Amino acid sequence: MNSAALQALRQAAGPDYFSQDAGDRLIYAGDGTCFRYPPEAVVRARGPEQISRVMAACGKYHVPVVPRGAGSGLTGGALPVAGGVLLDMAGLNRIKAIRKRDQVAVAEPGVVTGELQAAAEAQGLFYPPDPASAAFCTLGGNVAENAGGMRAVKYGVTRDYVLGLRAVLPDGRLLKTGGANIKSVVGYDLTRLLVGSEGTLAVIYEIILRLLPLPEDRATINAFYADLDKAARAVEGLLASGIRPVACEFMDGYCLKAVESYAKLGLPPAAAMILVDLDGPPEVVRRQSGQVETILQQAGGEPVRVAGDRAEAEGLWRARRAMGPAVYQHGPGKLNEDVAVPLGSLAEMVRRAHLVGEKRGLVIPVFGHAGDGNLHINVMHDPAYPEQVSQAHQAVSDLFAHCLSLGGTLSGEHGVGTTKLGFVGAEMDPVGLELMRGIKKVFDPAGILNPHKKLPPPEVLP
Amino acid sequence: MNSAALQALRQAAGPDYFSQDAGDRLIYAGDGTCFRYPPEAVVRARGPEQISRVMAACGKYHVPVVPRGAGSGLTGGALPVAGGVLLDMAGLNRIKAIRKRDQVAVAEPGVVTGELQAAAEAQGLFYPPDPASAAFCTLGGNVAENAGGMRAVKYGVTRDYVLGLRAVLPDGRLLKTGGANIKSVVGYDLTRLLVGSEGTLAVIYEIILRLLPLPEDRATINAFYADLDKAARAVEGLLASGIRPVACEFMDGYCLKAVESYAKLGLPPAAAMILVDLDGPPEVVRRQSGQVETILQQAGGEPVRVAGDRAEAEGLWRARRAMGPAVYQHGPGKLNEDVAVPLGSLAEMVRRAHLVGEKRGLVIPVFGHAGDGNLHINVMHDPAYPEQVSQAHQAVSDLFAHCLSLGGTLSGEHGVGTTKLGFVGAEMDPVGLELMRGIKKVFDPAGILNPHKKLPPPEVLP
Repeated sequence: MNSAALQALRQAAGPDYFSQDAGDRLIYAGDGTCFRYPPEAVVRARGPEQISRVMAACGKYHVPVVPRGAGSGLTGGALPVAGGVLLDMAGLNRIKAIRKRDQVAVAEPGVVTGELQAAAEAQGLFYPPDPASAAFCTLGGNVAENAGGMRAVKYGVTRDYVLGLRAVLPDGRLLKTGGANIKSVVGYDLTRLLVGSEGTLAVIYEIILRLLPLPEDRATINAFYADLDKAARAVEGLLASGIRPVACEFMDGYCLKAVESYAKLGLPPAAAMILVDLDGPPEVVRRQSGQVETILQQAGGEPVRVAGDRAEAEGLWRARRAMGPAVYQHGPGKLNEDVAVPLGSLAEMVRRAHLVGEKRGLVIPVFGHAGDGNLHINVMHDPAYPEQVSQAHQAVSDLFAHCLSLGGTLSGEHGVGTTKLGFVGAEMDPVGLELMRGIKKVFDPAGILNPHKKLPPPEVLP
Repeated sequence: MNSAALQALRQAAGPDYFSQDAGDRLIYAGDGTCFRYPPEAVVRARGPEQISRVMAACGKYHVPVVPRGAGSGLTGGALPVAGGVLLDMAGLNRIKAIRKRDQVAVAEPGVVTGELQAAAEAQGLFYPPDPASAAFCTLGGNVAENAGGMRAVKYGVTRDYVLGLRAVLPDGRLLKTGGANIKSVVGYDLTRLLVGSEGTLAVIYEIILRLLPLPEDRATINAFYADLDKAARAVEGLLASGIRPVACEFMDGYCLKAVESYAKLGLPPAAAMILVDLDGPPEVVRRQSGQVETILQQAGGEPVRVAGDRAEAEGLWRARRAMGPAVYQHGPGKLNEDVAVPLGSLAEMVRRAHLVGEKRGLVIPVFGHAGDGNLHINVMHDPAYPEQVSQAHQAVSDLFAHCLSLGGTLSGEHGVGTTKLGFVGAEMDPVGLELMRGIKKVFDPAGILNPHKKLPPPEVLP
């Protein structure tokens, strides 16, 4: 950025919202990946008019802009890979309204997801999307990535709750999509096109979210299995039973070992654990808990435990929640993949992940959202050994090939960002990709908004 | 179309799939609206390769193409308003697979929605979208319009079940979007962009649909109210109760009178009827039926009836299902609108519709899906009297103005088609509309696919 650009930007942002401070640039250089790209300047978003001025200035001087929420993304979506301006949305963090009669919330993108959940709950309402990072991730990031999470089996993903958006286009124009209506078929569905677009099409400054009535009761059941096939049968039995669990989480033996070593929870040695959450009216939750217990037992679960109360339920969830940090028990480096496969191919995908690990001489723990086919596959390695790094990267290629051969997708909920850019060409229909590039051009003809993300450039196509 | 175009088309389609017969042209001239536009030729779709050849030929000769399913749409989406080719998709009517373990169906667009529902049910699975026309409408039309229906309150709309599409672009290229994965965030969401695009972006030839486990039990409750406010309180009480009904239908006094006069069901005289469907495990359905009964009674329902079995439930539904033909008891002409408003504005919208009727000297019966804010407002009139026709059209303008002032949308589920083209400019954000036009250009640069639909041309913008 030359000094004219910097001066225009400082003025557009307002001096109190603009920084070139080395510390700020360092803070905003990274996200949930291991990569670091310091931006040339940081702008703290203040509201639509200011964002509009900033975008216009960036357009004039061809400066890339990267919007960022909490910076907790796992695929590099908020990394300023091309330098330019980091647009920090975290300060736009007001819940503007919870409209109880309409069952909608209106919130700014910097609101922490868990805070919206709590605010809805205080009014007897329910915001179902529940990414594992709910305590610190923001709604804007959730919308940008179409975040999934623990309750997606029954309640779907972020997309299913976004009714309308207010955004700034790359040329500074303000855009309204949707509203507070549960149904609308007027115009093309720009709302859901922006959801999951990873900040490449527009800068979202307001989100209208659908809320549901708060479920009356919850229950948690877990079960351990001596082999993978039994666990797979348990999941299949559960999904075929007619019961719609809120969550149906899976952890393999590597995960269990890591969690036990890290958190000392007294987990039994096992090849797999299944964790099921139910919700609904108390008598259903009671009856279905019993049914789930039976299904998990008949598939060979030993032991199977039904939590007696919320405290016990939290105990059962502890193993799952400890997964993030615990996985490093298997090595200091991790390539964190997030494939999804059709439900019937879940066990096969886990088996193949383990075989890839054996072939590559690496430990590959697998956990994730079994109920919707979304698996978090972690290729553990020691970055100090170049041969391990090379094997780890080859393992990821192997895994992706297996995933696609099973009809799967390379990302269920983490997004493409930069880290999967080199791979998604193998999944995406080339005609579809060309249409997507056309859509990007319609929104961002100058290509200044979050460049080099989401869509592979022509040259890395297979 | 000149003779070279016709010959090229006949060859592209295959002679057995091509017709210029006057009878065929007449059959395919109309849809669920009162308008008729005979196409110049009819092509019966045979499969993707043939559709591709047909599209390429139409592109070469600048011939408009209008895809059509059952022709039951209510806003003119399947009308060949610019002549050209009517592409009849009804013959592509195979359910290619119901993959029980994956909980997905793969079907061609000409499959009748009710047939897919039945085929899923035969395997213990459930396809929730249930438009009133399920007995004859087709999946392709449902996807094109993002059809809603009776079960949308709990289960959402067609969009929520479409996981992937296979389509032919206007230039003849084949497009794949999505797959059999419940979650995927690879690329922009072309699948949901095509859903609700009213056949203006691509010709869909295969649909991958998500299925759910079949609910164990159902129940139906209805209640009659002496005034509208009480009925509105009943709906609000129900939605605030934490119960998630499958359906929460509303009919006003005009509707009840028309149905009684048409079908002689012995309905009590009333200002409104509420009809609620529940589903789930038997004990919940039982308990919630009691709760719903109490809520409907406490709001002033008199009488309130809980159906004792499915036969009785069908009896309660009979009034609602008779609405389509019965409404003509109020006049031989109907302008059928399909607004949706935020949940809290439902009663206000009904009140305003009635006031518009009084002001215009017309009967305006209102019924619809109260649980998701979607109201079917019917402006009845006698087309033999020009003054009534003029008042009816003015009433529609009044209604749309009221709807928008309440934060509503001009179509909840019927689409824009041609019949709402003159109005949606008032709802749509002009910046959004420009983006939509850009998207249309990306998919259909020559503008041959279902032209003059969905997006208002620049000149009718307000």
